[in-house]
Amino acid sequence: MPFVNIKITKDGATVEQKQQLIAGVTNLLVNIMGKNPQTTVVVIEEVDTDNWGIGGESVTVRRQRGQ
Amino acid sequence: MPFVNIKITKDGATVEQKQQLIAGVTNLLVNIMGKNPQTTVVVIEEVDTDNWGIGGESVTVRRQRGQ
Amino acid sequence: MPFVNIKITKDGATVEQKQQLIAGVTNLLVNIMGKNPQTTVVVIEEVDTDNWGIGGESVTVRRQRGQ
Amino acid sequence: MPFVNIKITKDGATVEQKQQLIAGVTNLLVNIMGKNPQTTVVVIEEVDTDNWGIGGESVTVRRQRGQ
Amino acid sequence: MPFVNIKITKDGATVEQKQQLIAGVTNLLVNIMGKNPQTTVVVIEEVDTDNWGIGGESVTVRRQRGQ
Amino acid sequence: MPFVNIKITKDGATVEQKQQLIAGVTNLLVNIMGKNPQTTVVVIEEVDTDNWGIGGESVTVRRQRGQ
Repeated sequence: MPFVNIKITKDGATVEQKQQLIAGVTNLLVNIMGKNPQTTVVVIEEVDTDNWGIGGESVTVRRQRGQ
Repeated sequence: MPFVNIKITKDGATVEQKQQLIAGVTNLLVNIMGKNPQTTVVVIEEVDTDNWGIGGESVTVRRQRGQ
Repeated sequence: MPFVNIKITKDGATVEQKQQLIAGVTNLLVNIMGKNPQTTVVVIEEVDTDNWGIGGESVTVRRQRGQ
Repeated sequence: MPFVNIKITKDGATVEQKQQLIAGVTNLLVNIMGKNPQTTVVVIEEVDTDNWGIGGESVTVRRQRGQ
Repeated sequence: MPFVNIKITKDGATVEQKQQLIAGVTNLLVNIMGKNPQTTVVVIEEVDTDNWGIGGESVTVRRQRGQ
Repeated sequence: MPFVNIKITKDGATVEQKQQLIAGVTNLLVNIMGKNPQTTVVVIEEVDTDNWGIGGESVTVRRQRGQ
């Protein structure tokens, strides 16, 4: 019954990468915590780099500066 | 003052369905919990089926398999 | 497969009220949206009034002022 | 290490406004709480007015009524 | 820079299980997505079974019925 | 109508610090975005250091190692 919400910047993650992430996180919850995979939900949110800030700046600005 | 976040797969929910859901959830919080509707917020997020996993697979893949 | 997160202030909601809220929200998603209740998850979070702000003030402070 | 999630209605917030908000919230966490800005993350989510409800109605409907 | 929020029912997860889950999810984001582990945050929330509903019932009630 | 969720580690934040944070974030949304403070909600969640991971480790473990 776990619910996992993964927020990442929108950077061209492929369908295959997202499938691997869903499978991998579900397996961890089954193997480490003994959770039931059939009711384990994983939701991935891809966020525009203008809307993601770290260190007081947007990721867009940081990348323009070469970080 | 409650805050309700509803995440569903993006499956063509209509504006009318979303209005009914907002009204219904707000009424439940007023009737069951005695909350003030004027400060009850309901936010609906519609998530691409590639980004929603259950049972270790994306909803896209499950549907292709006929589940 | 919907996931619903309800945040309310910690104000002595009873187990019965929470059961009614879980049942009610699940029914809305089934009746309005055609969702499957067996994979509809509702999580209620009760938040200390010191940690909930509205109008720029905590709920604790607002109540002390009689609002 | 704080994580801040800001949900607002999608109303044409500019890139500059979002940068100011990211900078401002990060500064508050540094100045008030002594947090490290380099690991302070701020994520802004802009939500369609059909999907945001308050007072039991969507923001779209409220605005049509002139509220 | 990913942010992962894992919600599970409060069922006696040990400190060691939580450490394994944090390490495992971080590794997946590094290996599958190429993310930087130093800014990957994982937050685990343990929710009382009275506050977690599935199938329209709280987990507490389901367990009393033997499900 | 914004909703702000701030997650921090549970480290003895005082009631006064939390009031300042609520006031400060609300002011930013009013001043930068023109939002209405009366419907701006700020919710602070304080998370046990065993349940917060960064760099693949819990904050508890990092602090024991002197980081």
